[in-house]
Amino acid sequence: MNGLATRYAEVSAGAEDRLTPAERSVVRKELAELAALDLQDTAVSSLEVMRAVAAAVPERLYGDSGDVLRRMHEIAGFGNHQSCLSSLPTVRACFELGLVAGTGGTPPPADLIVGRGHIAPSFYAERYVRGELPFLPLTTLHRGGMTGVVHRDWGFENTMRYSLGVGLAQAVSRAQELAGRGDDRKVVCLAGDGELHEGVTFECIRYAHDTGLDNLVLVVDANDRGIEPLLKPLNRDYLRAYFPTVAEVDGTDAASVRKALAGLLEAPGRAVLVCRTRKGEHSFKLPAAPPRAPSFAATTGRMLADVPTASGRPPVVFTADMANRFGLRGHVPYHNTGLAETLSVGLTLALPEDDLKVVATDAMYYMDSLSMLTEAATGVRNLMVLAGRNWAAWGGSPNAFNLLSLLTETRVYEPVTEAEFHACARRLAAEPGTVHVLSMVDARFTPPAADCAQAVDDGVWINDPGTDDADTAVVTFGYATTLVEEANARLRLPHLHCAALNPLFSRPVLERLRRFRRVVSVEYNGSHGGFGSWLRSRYLLPVTVHGVEKDIDNCVHDEQLRRHGMSPAQLAALLRSVRTEAGESRAAARS
Amino acid sequence: MNGLATRYAEVSAGAEDRLTPAERSVVRKELAELAALDLQDTAVSSLEVMRAVAAAVPERLYGDSGDVLRRMHEIAGFGNHQSCLSSLPTVRACFELGLVAGTGGTPPPADLIVGRGHIAPSFYAERYVRGELPFLPLTTLHRGGMTGVVHRDWGFENTMRYSLGVGLAQAVSRAQELAGRGDDRKVVCLAGDGELHEGVTFECIRYAHDTGLDNLVLVVDANDRGIEPLLKPLNRDYLRAYFPTVAEVDGTDAASVRKALAGLLEAPGRAVLVCRTRKGEHSFKLPAAPPRAPSFAATTGRMLADVPTASGRPPVVFTADMANRFGLRGHVPYHNTGLAETLSVGLTLALPEDDLKVVATDAMYYMDSLSMLTEAATGVRNLMVLAGRNWAAWGGSPNAFNLLSLLTETRVYEPVTEAEFHACARRLAAEPGTVHVLSMVDARFTPPAADCAQAVDDGVWINDPGTDDADTAVVTFGYATTLVEEANARLRLPHLHCAALNPLFSRPVLERLRRFRRVVSVEYNGSHGGFGSWLRSRYLLPVTVHGVEKDIDNCVHDEQLRRHGMSPAQLAALLRSVRTEAGESRAAARS
Repeated sequence: MNGLATRYAEVSAGAEDRLTPAERSVVRKELAELAALDLQDTAVSSLEVMRAVAAAVPERLYGDSGDVLRRMHEIAGFGNHQSCLSSLPTVRACFELGLVAGTGGTPPPADLIVGRGHIAPSFYAERYVRGELPFLPLTTLHRGGMTGVVHRDWGFENTMRYSLGVGLAQAVSRAQELAGRGDDRKVVCLAGDGELHEGVTFECIRYAHDTGLDNLVLVVDANDRGIEPLLKPLNRDYLRAYFPTVAEVDGTDAASVRKALAGLLEAPGRAVLVCRTRKGEHSFKLPAAPPRAPSFAATTGRMLADVPTASGRPPVVFTADMANRFGLRGHVPYHNTGLAETLSVGLTLALPEDDLKVVATDAMYYMDSLSMLTEAATGVRNLMVLAGRNWAAWGGSPNAFNLLSLLTETRVYEPVTEAEFHACARRLAAEPGTVHVLSMVDARFTPPAADCAQAVDDGVWINDPGTDDADTAVVTFGYATTLVEEANARLRLPHLHCAALNPLFSRPVLERLRRFRRVVSVEYNGSHGGFGSWLRSRYLLPVTVHGVEKDIDNCVHDEQLRRHGMSPAQLAALLRSVRTEAGESRAAARS
Repeated sequence: MNGLATRYAEVSAGAEDRLTPAERSVVRKELAELAALDLQDTAVSSLEVMRAVAAAVPERLYGDSGDVLRRMHEIAGFGNHQSCLSSLPTVRACFELGLVAGTGGTPPPADLIVGRGHIAPSFYAERYVRGELPFLPLTTLHRGGMTGVVHRDWGFENTMRYSLGVGLAQAVSRAQELAGRGDDRKVVCLAGDGELHEGVTFECIRYAHDTGLDNLVLVVDANDRGIEPLLKPLNRDYLRAYFPTVAEVDGTDAASVRKALAGLLEAPGRAVLVCRTRKGEHSFKLPAAPPRAPSFAATTGRMLADVPTASGRPPVVFTADMANRFGLRGHVPYHNTGLAETLSVGLTLALPEDDLKVVATDAMYYMDSLSMLTEAATGVRNLMVLAGRNWAAWGGSPNAFNLLSLLTETRVYEPVTEAEFHACARRLAAEPGTVHVLSMVDARFTPPAADCAQAVDDGVWINDPGTDDADTAVVTFGYATTLVEEANARLRLPHLHCAALNPLFSRPVLERLRRFRRVVSVEYNGSHGGFGSWLRSRYLLPVTVHGVEKDIDNCVHDEQLRRHGMSPAQLAALLRSVRTEAGESRAAARS
């Protein structure tokens, strides 16, 4: 049995109770075929391996890719089902035109770049009904098997990390390259209408026009929604200003899309194909799913409504399409800027000083707005930046908070209790010239036994060391505190919790820390330039830093924790090992 | 004599030999008036103080603001004279319409936000001929007196830090705020056609359209140039897609601009006024200026042409309008993306693996492209990022390199010799999966006595400590090496030079460093999360960090160095003081 088979068996087994008997039976057969493969050649892509399995087990459970898509989401339990569905006819048209790499003997007539990164499952569903994928990987979507975002390893021409607008840049880059070497193929780029709100897509479109790039065909899924409904439909006049040809079809009909796209590929020049589609709620929910408690991030709106403001007016809130994620609706008024993060920061620049300004989007999306944030940090008072923290199926960036902490006049906190959230808000009110970035965790967790609400820049003992213990202490940042608390339940090492990414310790805390022979820091955050690194740099404490070292994958939270060594079981092992080491070195010194 | 008078006397004196006798005489009178003012009230703006001086010395040397603008640039010796000139008639029209704050008794009929931040001198010139400013501050432009970029302190409604596109965000923010509180004033925003290439300007324009904002009037100086000529003229159809009214006038005629703008302010709804203008070379040069040696950054093109590439093909270079600054022309082919930095990074995403890709813009401009750079760092091989480093009249960001160094798969270097530049290029060739960011300094300096070309991640001794010296060492990063070398010429402390922002010391260097009682690090770079901070964090060396603590001002290089404690004289004093301290504490310990 090869490693891949072991992994897929394990991940697929986690969903076994959601499979029909027929699905279970097929998956078993496919697993057996996968296990029998000789996978010495590591250069073979996941798609190629799975295609071999599909060839060995040719029976198809479903003949319609819409059914496959639905089953994939029912089995996963979540995902962007509606986005995938709205693009499915277009994806089918791309298959029929031979645009999808590796599906025919002949080279594709055009290069296909998929900018709507999260519609990868639509391609999988099409590949399944065409006999190019087995059912097995489809049962592992988002959970550590198959990735839900386009990736070269799964037969796409491009890989995405969930930065909207990147696909169009990839497409223009490719188109310019092909043109430059005299290759007359075109590049087809699939994008969404919400995605076209991103400034970088304009930069690409304007550049393609101004350089006379004539081999780009932009296909837009116009479903009138980003995560929430768009304020106005896609502006066709804007597209006409930059493309000589703008065609429009019923995007719910694959045959129409195919015919129109074939025509645009044949005709000379740059073109847009607008596919009118429909899309329901952005996030998939199982019809029978029991109501779940909201994540900590989703309680932000409620907490925000209770924050007293200097102006006495409600906070002025701007969100780049993420009202739902922060639970704003019904609690505070807000402006939805659409998928335009730099704008959402920019809109805070000229408001009255004493208004509380709040910006809310995912942490990684600020990474293309740090100059604008610097403008805000130097010119705006009373600015609270809410940075959503997911790092699960969504992806994310391990270094986003470390980057934010380096901005001038900026402090970063990760509150994990309501009291800590309000302590951060009070700190902002007391120091309105400093931007307060609050990392808001998209997870459900038990609040820690103690919090930093009384002194939000300091640390607070979760397990008090007492006066004698001088062996090993663990210091944690934000959400990692809850993971370590669980990991440390039996071992009960002295444990200090911090809400500040760059804590400023009081003398008693610092003096107590200095007396330990060994200090381990844990953060579910990039280790380079992060919390532990700060403790070393600021206090010259010989801290062993345990943080995120690798890039973030696209998979569910539990699996993500495991991949970064952050699961409570892994952390318990870490704490045991450091205590043992410290104990042993002490024993050795005494002997 | 008050502090302001002292400062202006000092700065103005530096340009005295460029003043005409009549100018000298007036400046003397104005200085006397300034010195006689009681400036206890610190809330008074620079503009208000200077207006009082102008009232006391009413004589005017020039009646035409164009002449004033020319004299300001002749006296300063550099600046963006042509940009200022192309907007001057529009600026004049704004004065005539009473749009410039504080120039009339009545409140302005609309709020004026100046997005072309570097046309501040046009406003000063107009204020001068209108008797609102004395000549004195005009003689101090860019040199530590009057700032060349719009600032609230000089009578503008907004302050800018030279991030293009920010002005439009400020204008939309203000317009939305006015509309929200039922104020029916409009907001006029002055922008440039090159500036409209920035993605954020599209985000603003689209948002204003989609939210039905009807109180914004965008005035565009369409001179068909950014720093270099635009590939295509401003796209009027694009503007028509988002604004109900798009008018166009001869922007070289103030009366036409005034009439058209007055009409748009009267009429209901959102509008654009395109002012057709002309602009010469972007940067001002004195006609009789002797040829100067190029800055180190300006030799980049020549050095780049000599870099061997894996593909054998010339490097594929993208620059956001900065070919001149990096001396690209005539040395390497390049694509000018216009003022669209995120695009310039994005265009590297889909090129052949073995091509050397180079992106070239100012360091601070990458701060709105860090997510795109992360995409590149995880997906592009052989990527060299050239980050121009000026921090002079241009402004800049002290933390840009520290931010870049935190990106995944990225290393930052600041070469100060041609050999170091090539060592960085070799390192990239050897480790093509890591983005190599090269800080290219816009200064003329003598190369240091030794460089890191042999081991670019290590340090090299400029002054070798010998075996016995264990008192105080100084460790420097990049350009700071040259400043410290000069400061240390007499003192001759042991001095280690590094080209890497995050050096990885060889054992001999590290062991030698550890033997010093005191280590001082110097970097002309943000101290938080920078070079010295890395030495503390990585090696737990008790380093005293001397770096840039404050935000960057808009003034010439020498003045900038002085403000950040980086002039050789200040550094010499710093080195003397640390050695003395260390020496004394040692003496005290011995006694």
